[in-house]
Amino acid sequence: MSENGLASRRGKVLTTDTMNPSVKKVEYAVRGPIVQRAVEIENELKKGAKKPFSEVIKANIGDAHAMGQQPVTFFRQVLALCSYPELLNSPLFPEDVKSRAGRILQSCGGGSIGETLQFCVRQDVAQYIKQRDGGIPCNPDNIYLSTGASDAIVTILKLLVCGEGRTCTGAMIPIPQYPLYSAALAELGAVQINYYLDEENCWSLNIGELRRALVDARKHCNPRVLCIINPGNPTGQVQSRKCIEDVIRFAAEENLFLMADEVYQDNVYADGCHFHSFKKVLFEMGPQYSNTVELASFHSTSKCYMGECGFRGGYMEVVNMDSDVKAQLTKLVSVRLCPPVPGQALMDLVVNPPKPGEPSHATFMKERTATLRSLAERAKLTEQILNTVPGIHCNPVQGAMYSFPQITIPERAVQEAKEKGQAPDMFYCMKLLDETGICVVPGSGFGQKEGTYHFRMTILPPTDKLKILLQKVKEFHMGFTEQFS
Amino acid sequence: MSENGLASRRGKVLTTDTMNPSVKKVEYAVRGPIVQRAVEIENELKKGAKKPFSEVIKANIGDAHAMGQQPVTFFRQVLALCSYPELLNSPLFPEDVKSRAGRILQSCGGGSIGETLQFCVRQDVAQYIKQRDGGIPCNPDNIYLSTGASDAIVTILKLLVCGEGRTCTGAMIPIPQYPLYSAALAELGAVQINYYLDEENCWSLNIGELRRALVDARKHCNPRVLCIINPGNPTGQVQSRKCIEDVIRFAAEENLFLMADEVYQDNVYADGCHFHSFKKVLFEMGPQYSNTVELASFHSTSKCYMGECGFRGGYMEVVNMDSDVKAQLTKLVSVRLCPPVPGQALMDLVVNPPKPGEPSHATFMKERTATLRSLAERAKLTEQILNTVPGIHCNPVQGAMYSFPQITIPERAVQEAKEKGQAPDMFYCMKLLDETGICVVPGSGFGQKEGTYHFRMTILPPTDKLKILLQKVKEFHMGFTEQFS
Ligand SMILES: Cc1ncc(COP(=O)(O)O)c(C=O)c1O
Ligand SMILES: Cc1ncc(COP(=O)(O)O)c(C=O)c1O
Repeated sequence: MSENGLASRRGKVLTTDTMNPSVKKVEYAVRGPIVQRAVEIENELKKGAKKPFSEVIKANIGDAHAMGQQPVTFFRQVLALCSYPELLNSPLFPEDVKSRAGRILQSCGGGSIGETLQFCVRQDVAQYIKQRDGGIPCNPDNIYLSTGASDAIVTILKLLVCGEGRTCTGAMIPIPQYPLYSAALAELGAVQINYYLDEENCWSLNIGELRRALVDARKHCNPRVLCIINPGNPTGQVQSRKCIEDVIRFAAEENLFLMADEVYQDNVYADGCHFHSFKKVLFEMGPQYSNTVELASFHSTSKCYMGECGFRGGYMEVVNMDSDVKAQLTKLVSVRLCPPVPGQALMDLVVNPPKPGEPSHATFMKERTATLRSLAERAKLTEQILNTVPGIHCNPVQGAMYSFPQITIPERAVQEAKEKGQAPDMFYCMKLLDETGICVVPGSGFGQKEGTYHFRMTILPPTDKLKILLQKVKEFHMGFTEQFS
Repeated sequence: MSENGLASRRGKVLTTDTMNPSVKKVEYAVRGPIVQRAVEIENELKKGAKKPFSEVIKANIGDAHAMGQQPVTFFRQVLALCSYPELLNSPLFPEDVKSRAGRILQSCGGGSIGETLQFCVRQDVAQYIKQRDGGIPCNPDNIYLSTGASDAIVTILKLLVCGEGRTCTGAMIPIPQYPLYSAALAELGAVQINYYLDEENCWSLNIGELRRALVDARKHCNPRVLCIINPGNPTGQVQSRKCIEDVIRFAAEENLFLMADEVYQDNVYADGCHFHSFKKVLFEMGPQYSNTVELASFHSTSKCYMGECGFRGGYMEVVNMDSDVKAQLTKLVSVRLCPPVPGQALMDLVVNPPKPGEPSHATFMKERTATLRSLAERAKLTEQILNTVPGIHCNPVQGAMYSFPQITIPERAVQEAKEKGQAPDMFYCMKLLDETGICVVPGSGFGQKEGTYHFRMTILPPTDKLKILLQKVKEFHMGFTEQFS
C-alpha cells in the first residue's frame, strides 16, 4: 500500500454488508447445498472413492433431457437447418423440415437467426392459443416472447410492484410453490402472501384458504396479484374447471391481477384430469369477466413433451392489460434486446408442429405420445411405490413432473437436525444423498405447513432407473426411521 | 356488472398510475418512436405507398446479420450438429466440427444441449482470457455465463444497489452511453452519475471530468461503481493503455467498483489503436492494484466479427470479488436457471475457435479477417463522407460499430421541434427517416452535452449501400439546413 492515493482504499467496495439487501433475502433451494454436495460426491466417485452406490441420480431438477429423454426429431432438425442454412440443400431432411426452416429464416433480418424473428412467432403463438382454447380469439399484440417462462413471470411481477409498508404490493403464491416466485418477490421487495394448497385433497386449491390469506394480508400490505401454478410444481396437481372458475371469480371480486403459470399444460396424466387454460375459462364465463379480469399466462419450451430447458424459449399472453402499461412493458423488454432466437424458433415449432399429411407428422406424433405416455407411467409408479412405504404419503401425481411426498421424520432426527442447524427435511435429504446417491430437494425449499416434512422428487429418471431409485428410497426411509426411533 | 361480487371490481389493477414507478422512469430510445415509425413506413411501402425511396435502411441497431453480414461457417456448423447430433455421422462436415460438437454434447447431461453445459464453457473462457492477456491467470470460478452481456451488466449493478437518498448507490456512466446503463439504473432505483466523454478529443475519457462528476455526486449520493465502455458505444473510441491505467488508479483511490464493458474487444480499426483489457492492465500495474481493485468485465457473442445477437451468449469475469458476494451472485443467477445453451455453446466456440492445422482454420480466418477488414473500411468511409458535409462533424470511428456525428441544427428547426414537443435531434431524425428511409437514433437517446445534437448511425450496411446512405444523409442535411435557415 505504498503508492500514493491507495491509502484511501478501505477494503472491498462490495461485501455482504454493503450489497443489495433484497438480493440477500433471495432463497433458492433447488440448486442449494444439496446440489453442491451431489457435485462433490460425483467428484469423489470419479477419483475412485468407495461408496455404497456407483452414481449420483439427480432427481432434483426438471431437466428431462439430462435424465435421458430424447429431443423431438422434427424440432432439432429444423433448428439445425436454421443454424446452418446450407443444409437446406441436403437430401438428409424431409421437405416439411426444410420449408419450416426456410419460413423461420425468412422472418429474420438478413436470413440469419438474428434479432428480428419475433413477429412471425407471435402470430403462430396466437394461432396456437386460439386453437387450444376452442376458437376463442387471441391477438398477437398480446403475446410477448421471453427467455423461458421465468423471464416473463419476473417481468410481470416487476410491473406490479410499488409502494412501501402497508401500501407495498403483495403477491399471493401457493405453498408449496416453485421457488422462482419467492425469489423474485424477495428481490423486488414485494410482500409474499402464502396460501396453502390442501394436501389432504390432492393439493387442490381451496377458495376459503385464498380468502383467509387475503384478509390477513390486507392488514399489512396491498395484495394485488394472485399467482396460480397449474399443473402444479412441486405438487403435481391439476386444477378442475370448477376450481379455475372460482379462482377467476375471486380475482374479479377482490380486484386481483391473475398470473397463470401453465408451463406444464401438456403434462396431464391422471384419469379424469384435463388441462383447462385460465384464458379459456375466463372467456367462457362471459363478458363481465372476459372484459375485466387482468390475466397473464405463461408457457415455455422447457417442459411438456419437449423438455428443452436449454433453449430458454417462452411466451406470455396478457389479457385486459391497460394499453399504456403494455407500452411500458414493450419498452422494458426492449432494453434487454431480444429473447434467444433459437428458443424463439423452437417456441414457434412447439406451437405449430407438423400437421397430418406432412412427412414428419407420424414420427412427431410417435415421439410425443411415447414421451407423454412414459411420463404418465412413471407418475403412477412413483405414487404407487412411495405409498407402500410406512411413513411416506404421496398424493397422486396428476400432472407436471414431480412428486412431493410427505415424510414422517422421527422426533430424534428432528432434534439432531436442529442441533446441526439444519431443517429436518434437509437433514433427511442429505443423508439420503450420502447413503444412496439419490439427490432430491427438501420440502422446506418450496414451503410446507409448519411441522410437516416433504421432499420433491422428479419423475424423470427412465422407468428402470426410477424403479431402483424408488426401491432405494423405500429402504432408506425404513432404515432412517429405525435408526432414529 | 350484474353478477354479485363484481360490483367490487373498481377498474384495472395495473395502470400507469399504479405500476412500478421505477419502470416508468426507464427510457430506451434505440427502439423508441423512430423505430415504430420505420416499421409503419415499411408497412406503407409494402402496401404500395409512393415514397421518395423504395426501402427503409435500418442503421439504428447493431445487428450485423440483419444488415447482411454472413455468419461464421464453423460456428454455425458446430451449432447445427449440437442441435441434431445425427449429423455427426454425415460426411458433410469436417472432422474438427464433429469433434467440437461431440465435446460440447458430452459436457451436457444426457448428451442433449440441456442445462448443464456451463462448466466446460467457463474453463474455455478462462483459457481464452489468459491467452488474450498474455498469460495472466484466469480462474474459471471467476467466470459467470450470461444471457448476452446485458444480463451480466444488470446483475452486477443489481448487486451493488442499496441505500436511499444520500446513501443511495451512485453509478458513474459515460455520456454518451449505451442506454442499457441508464435503463438499468432507473429500474433499480440507483443514481446515475454522468461523466462526459471529450468530443473534442475523439471522445476520450478525461480523468479531470471523472473527478468533477464524482465530487459533485458525493454531495447527494454514494458513488460506488464506475462503468467504462471500451471500445465505445455509441462513440466508437478506443481507450489508450495510459487512459486505462489512470482509470484504474482513480477507481483504487476513490474506492469504486469497476465495470468494464468490453463487448467490442475485436472491433478495433484505427491505426495505432489497440484493445487493452482492463484485467490485463490491472494485473500489469502490480499487486497493490491487482489484489485490491474489484473489477467485472463483460463479453458477448453479439458483436466483434461474429455479430450473433440472436444467440444471447455472454460471460463476465469478476476479479477481487468478495467470496461471500460471489456465493450470493451464484444463487441469484441460479434462480433464472441457465443462460441459453446454444448461446453458451457459441460462446465456447468464440473463445476457442479452430486452431492452425485444423481443417476449418483457413476458412475461419478468412471469414473473420474479411468481416473485420470490411468493418474497418466502412468505419473510415463513414467518417470521411460525413466530414465532407458542412454542419456535420464526425470523430474517427476507432472501433465498435457506430459513428456518432455532431450535427448543427438551425435555430428555426430547434424552435419548430420544441413547438412539437420533440427533442431537436428527434425532429431531425424523423425528417431524415420520412424523406430518405434512413433510420438512425437521435443523440438524445444516448445523452449529449446540453445544446449539442448528434445521431448514432451504425456502420453495418454493406459498403455499397453505406455509400448511398451517406450520400443521402449529406443531401438531406444540406437541404434541412437550407430549409430552416
Ligand atoms: C412452475 C414453473 N414455472 C416456471 C418455470 C420456469 O421455466 P422456464 O425454463 O421456461 O424459465 C418452471 C421451471 O421449472 C416451473 O416449474
Ligand atoms: C456497449 C454494449 N454493451 C452491452 C451490449 C449488450 O450486448 P448483448 O447483446 O451481449 O446483451 C451492447 C449491445 O449493443 C453494447 O453495445
